[in-house]
Formats: sequence, C-alpha cells, structure tokens
Amino acid sequence: MTLIEAARGGRTTPVMEAVAGRESVPAETLRAGLADGTIVIPANTNREADRRCAIGRGLRVKVNANIGTSGDYASADEELAKLEAAIEAGADAVMDLSTGGDVAAVRRRLLDACPVAFGSVPTYSAVSEHGPDKGLVGMSAGDFLAAFERHARDGVDFVVVHAGVTREGLRLLDEHPRVCGIISRGGTMISEWMRHHGVENPLYEHFDEILAFARAHEVTLSLGDALRPGAQADSFDRAQVYELGVQAELQQRALAAGVQSMIEGPGHVPLNQVAAQVELEKATCHGAPFFVLGPLVTDVAPGYDHITAAIGGAVAAAAGADFLCYVTAGEHLALPTVEEVREGVMASRIAAHAADVARGNPAAIAWDRTFSERRAARDWDAQIAHCLDPQRAGRIRDQHRPADDGVCSMCGDLCVFKLAADGARTRGGDA
Amino acid sequence: MTLIEAARGGRTTPVMEAVAGRESVPAETLRAGLADGTIVIPANTNREADRRCAIGRGLRVKVNANIGTSGDYASADEELAKLEAAIEAGADAVMDLSTGGDVAAVRRRLLDACPVAFGSVPTYSAVSEHGPDKGLVGMSAGDFLAAFERHARDGVDFVVVHAGVTREGLRLLDEHPRVCGIISRGGTMISEWMRHHGVENPLYEHFDEILAFARAHEVTLSLGDALRPGAQADSFDRAQVYELGVQAELQQRALAAGVQSMIEGPGHVPLNQVAAQVELEKATCHGAPFFVLGPLVTDVAPGYDHITAAIGGAVAAAAGADFLCYVTAGEHLALPTVEEVREGVMASRIAAHAADVARGNPAAIAWDRTFSERRAARDWDAQIAHCLDPQRAGRIRDQHRPADDGVCSMCGDLCVFKLAADGARTRGGDA
Repeated sequence: MTLIEAARGGRTTPVMEAVAGRESVPAETLRAGLADGTIVIPANTNREADRRCAIGRGLRVKVNANIGTSGDYASADEELAKLEAAIEAGADAVMDLSTGGDVAAVRRRLLDACPVAFGSVPTYSAVSEHGPDKGLVGMSAGDFLAAFERHARDGVDFVVVHAGVTREGLRLLDEHPRVCGIISRGGTMISEWMRHHGVENPLYEHFDEILAFARAHEVTLSLGDALRPGAQADSFDRAQVYELGVQAELQQRALAAGVQSMIEGPGHVPLNQVAAQVELEKATCHGAPFFVLGPLVTDVAPGYDHITAAIGGAVAAAAGADFLCYVTAGEHLALPTVEEVREGVMASRIAAHAADVARGNPAAIAWDRTFSERRAARDWDAQIAHCLDPQRAGRIRDQHRPADDGVCSMCGDLCVFKLAADGARTRGGDA
Repeated sequence: MTLIEAARGGRTTPVMEAVAGRESVPAETLRAGLADGTIVIPANTNREADRRCAIGRGLRVKVNANIGTSGDYASADEELAKLEAAIEAGADAVMDLSTGGDVAAVRRRLLDACPVAFGSVPTYSAVSEHGPDKGLVGMSAGDFLAAFERHARDGVDFVVVHAGVTREGLRLLDEHPRVCGIISRGGTMISEWMRHHGVENPLYEHFDEILAFARAHEVTLSLGDALRPGAQADSFDRAQVYELGVQAELQQRALAAGVQSMIEGPGHVPLNQVAAQVELEKATCHGAPFFVLGPLVTDVAPGYDHITAAIGGAVAAAAGADFLCYVTAGEHLALPTVEEVREGVMASRIAAHAADVARGNPAAIAWDRTFSERRAARDWDAQIAHCLDPQRAGRIRDQHRPADDGVCSMCGDLCVFKLAADGARTRGGDA
C-alpha cells in the first residue's frame, strides 16, 4: 500500500506521523494533501532518513540543492563535502546530478550520508553508464527504463522523469524557434534520442512501467519540464505551455496509480511572468506541488545566479510555488564549489522564508518578530543566534568590531536604539 | 533659474542634454518629467560630474551605494576605495553617510573623486561636528540648517531631509508602539531633539530655508522617511503612512519652489506588501520618484542582506520604484568592507535590471537576448563579455576549467547546446 492509498484509507503511517511532527501540522493535513495530490512526502521505503519533509499546499516552502560529479570533475569526496555543506546550510532536499566517474557508486555514497529527501535524474546515469559505449542514440528504451528501477531500489526518494516532452512538443518547438532551444539536460538527451529514431518519448510511452517501479518502492516522481525556457525571451512559449499540459496528464495518471508526483517548472522567466507561471501550473496541474528551478529573472548575471534565483524564487513561492531548487553562483559557468553550494542554499532559504512570511506562515512571522525584538533590545548574542546563518553574521560583525560591544561599528554611539534608550532615560523613562 | 524652471520654459540645458544622451531618451521626456516632478536630475551647479543620471518615470531603474566613515572606523582612504569599488561595479549614485573623523574633509575628498551623482545626509554631519561638544539635544535649529548650506556649497547633488517626521507622526508612533521604533539614524536624531525640547521638527518648520539653499545650488531633496519600518512587523503602520502624507506635502512645496525632490521609502517590508508600498507612494506623492532602501523582505538574514534587498528591490522596481539603495552584507552587523560594497552594488543592479526587463525596457530586454544568443552559440568570450560582471564570471569559470573549452565543467560533453548541435549535424542539418 502506498502513502497515497494509506491516506485515502484514513490511515496515518509512521512516515506521515514523523513528518507531521517536523512540519508542526496535523497528520490529517498531510493525509488530505496526499490523497488529492497537493502534498508529497518523498520517502523511498528502501531507505531510512531522519529528516524527511512534506512539500505542497499550506506547508513551509522547501529548498533543494543540486550536487553531483561531472565528466571533468568526478570526485565523490568533493560531492560528499557539498552534501554536508548543503545539509548544514539547511537544505530540505538534495539531488544527485552526477554524470562523471562511477555514478552508481557516487549515488550510493551520497544516499548513505543523506539525512534529508534525496532526488536524482536516472536519465543522466543511464546516459553516463551506457553513452560511452553505445552513444546516446545507440541506447535502447530499456536502458533508460532500467535506470529508474536501479535508482528506486537504491532508495532514491524522488526521481526526475522527462516524460512530458512529446513529439507534439518538439513539433511546436521547431515551428516556433527559440533563442536557447532546450536547456534541460535530460530533456535534450531524450529529445535527441527521439529525433534520431523518429519515435515518441520512451518515458512517455512506458510511463506505466515507471509508475510500477515508483509504486513498488514509494518513489515520488518529479515530472520534469524538458521544454522549460532557458532564456527570458523563451518564457511562456507554445512548447513550454504545451508540455505543462502533458505534465498535468501524467500527474493525474500517477495519482490514479497511487504514486506521488510533483511538477517541475522554469527556469529563465521575466519577473513580470513569474507569478503567472505559478498560477498557470496550479490551474493546469490540479494544485500539484510546484518545484521551480530559480526562476532566474535575468539571463545576464552568471556569477550571481544564486541572487537572481532568490529573486525569482521568492516571488514564485509567494505566488504559491512549493519547492525551490537553488541555483549556485557557479551555474552556467562551472561545476560549483563547496562554498557556492553553501551560499546557494542560504540564498534560496531567504527566498523561501520571505515567501513564508508573505504567505502568513505563523512560525515564519514569529521568527522575524523575535529576531527584531532582540535587535531593538541590542541583545547581540540572541540576535546573532536568531540569524538565518549565525556563523556568517558573527564573522561579519568581527571583521569590523565596534569599540562598544553594545552597538555595531557602522553607527557606533549613533546607534538608533542606543540614542532612543538614552533619550528616554534622560527624560525620565517617558518613551 | 533651476532645472525645473528651465524645463517649464521649454529650455533644454546642457545638463539635460548630456543626461538625455546617456539615458537614450529625448530631452523632451526629461523636460516633461522635471516640470511635473516625476523625474529628477541630481546635479549641483557647484560641481562637475561626468556621469550624471536622471531618475524617475519611464527611465532605467537606478542604483545607489551608501559609503562613509563611522566613529569606530574613520579612514578616508578606505571610503575612497569603497567609492571606487561602487563606481567600478556600476553604481549610478553614491551617498556619503560619514559620521567619523573629519566628516567635512572626507566629504570633499569623496566629492572630488566621484563621477556620478553624489548624495549626503547633512544631519549626520551636523551631529558629528556639534554633537561631541554640545550633545545632540544641545544643538540649535540653526546647527541643523547650517549643515544643509555647507553640503549645498560643497557640490552635493542630493541631500536627505528628515522633515517628514512631525509631532503628529511621533504621537501616532507612541500610540501604536512598534517592535523596532525608529530605525532611521537621521530620523532618530531629529525626533530625539524634538522630544527633548517638546517642539516641532526644525527641518519641517524651516523647510523654506532648505528650499532656498537647494534653489541656489540646484540641490535635489531626498525627502527622508524617518518613520520607515525597521522590522517586518512594523510595515504599513499608522506612523509610516502618516509620514508619507507629509513627504507628499513637502514634495509639492519643493516643486512649487522649482526645487527637485524624490521620496524615500522603506526599509523592512514583507514581500506581499512591497508592490503596495510603491503604489501608495505613487498615488500619495503625485508620481514623484521613489527611492527605496532595499526593501528587506525578512529581518533574519543579516550577513546576506544584499540578497534580501535584491529580492525586495526587484519587486519594488517592477512595481514602479525608480531608485534602489543597495544594502550590503555587512548591514546591521558592521561597517561594510570594500568587497561587500562591490557585491552590494552588483546585487542591486541585478534587481534593477530584472525590473527593467519586467517593465519592458527595450535596451534591457535586448541585453538578455544578445547574451543568450551567444550562450546558445557557445561563444564563451562574447558570453563572458556580456555578463553583468565579466570579471567575476571569468574567475568562476576558471575555478573549475573544462577539458573542452567549448563547454563548461558542469556538463562537459553533455552540454545541451553541444548535444543538440552534434545531433543536428548527424541528421544532416535538420535541427
């Protein structure tokens, strides 16, 4: 029995109970959301994980960090260090996008070390394992499908399935050329294979088999947006919007099969279209959890894409997106460093938290209030302790220490809280 | 004759002509905006500056960087280095907020070195110069006013005037207590002085004298929001909204006197209120240029407030704010470093540019398009050259160099543009 089936039967499983506690919501909220597909709890039955979460309607916005080796840099140790940095920075989920070295071994090492929800892209590992011998187009549909089963057996909690890019989607793409074509890596692999063989998407055609693997191991499907825009100019084009309809159809098929799923979204989107992207997804996909990559609100800021993504992510989440995939400062330029992973998670957490405040999440609002009360009281220890990143806040404060520990070195004696307190004292406590 | 008077007379002055060229707008656009108060060109007649700009309706969103000494760190050389970093990073304006050391000497050194619009807060220097002897409350109304004249004579292009905080504003503040009270430094100085003496705001009472200094030297007034919220919990409270009405009244008095002015805005604002803050300002203040500080969409992220401000700034500017004051990573913790100044400007430029794209600015949209075309062509030199910060983008690319110079080290041979181009070639050019 899957989580969806248990929820429909009114049963609260131990996973639901644990996550309800962590989320501070009644188990009934999770059951209702699982049953109607508006909430997912990625939780593969083959793996234990201490800090699983729920993603979806009415819950705190969650943050995912992508890590993984590449052909040029294939050190498992380095990626383990990134996993640790992402967890320490507060990521709710981590995805392994490895394409270099022994990808199966890297995946298993990361899985063993990961206390939070763990995602992957089986298509990458299929191509990384078979591509060097067979070439991408020499692979069989079975090669692609087998990767899903391996990841499911290994304990991966959620997998990306690029089943939404169909021949009709590619036809629309060809009919309305883009600045940046397809920028999804998995989407490019699948569509190049389709174009070569002149056939339909094998993941779409064999979607029932993927559902069977997912059912057997309680794997959540992350329905990929292979045709997401990769440039501001390409946002909301016919191919992207058409694929969203296919994603919605797949989400309904998954739900009917008792398989959890969420919808992946863009990508590169002008700021004025970000909220509309979320509204369209929610309307088209029956309120399914929306997992956005960024969105990046300009194309021109490589080197700072963690910031560009934080802008788009905050606006998307405030409009209803449920799950933010971070983007690192290294994106578009190079495999990220450990420090870029850490900063990327922090930037996305700011976006997620700002959205939680905007959405009226009581715990989020209380955090800001408590912090600011300590700030007004010039209680520096408590203030630093309540920061999103106490370590970094403390380090910056120490760079330019104040002469008086009760203030900071920007204002010194002209600290507004000190001036006001001194004034009130002088006037006899009126203020 | 002031710029406003010239514009009303249909005359294009050399300053207007130079700025129209830099902004790529007809001089008529600037004249119309100057005449009705929806555009300002901060341009003190006592100073030459190569790269002045216009701020307001229909123009590219501008970015300001705050620098300046403090009591604890009073090195003029260090602040000159920050000025250079801000200019190099692309700031459209710089404000000197010095409160430490010989503030007049620091201001003059910075003014000499500054090619862009230069702003200041005369109230800070009044208090820094007189406070140590007289104490804040021992100062006279004349001490405050004299500082405005000194800054105007020195060539400062725009000055902050905290004339909007009146006795009624303080009454509302006392009646509706806040989490963080007044967090404007100048506003705290003025209101503490008012509370001690039990009198009206001297800058409000003597506003005509300030207008006279401004007229004589073509100084633009930045009408400060002393009662801006300093915590999410304080946004849109009665005191803040009341002060905005006073700012609007002062803006109309300035316009009638032929003096340019803009309205300063918050501050700490929940994301769901940011656009409404802009709408309220535009409606209340007759479309006057809106100069926002951030806004910061959460209180809890000191150490990353450049990112928090970029989120709020992008949303504010997309909603119509005209001028973004950056916030550095050091804000709330310490006087910023040179590197924090540089990153702060970059973060605000991302916000401003994302808003320009969202507002349909043709040059902004073309920049993204050109960049992405070069990206799709894997023309790395052109791509890096078109980045917002080519230096940083190049450095990150070099951290993890790819084996093949035509791709990046994240995707390597699995580069989507390479896969698609190789596939199309194999199929005989049918992309």
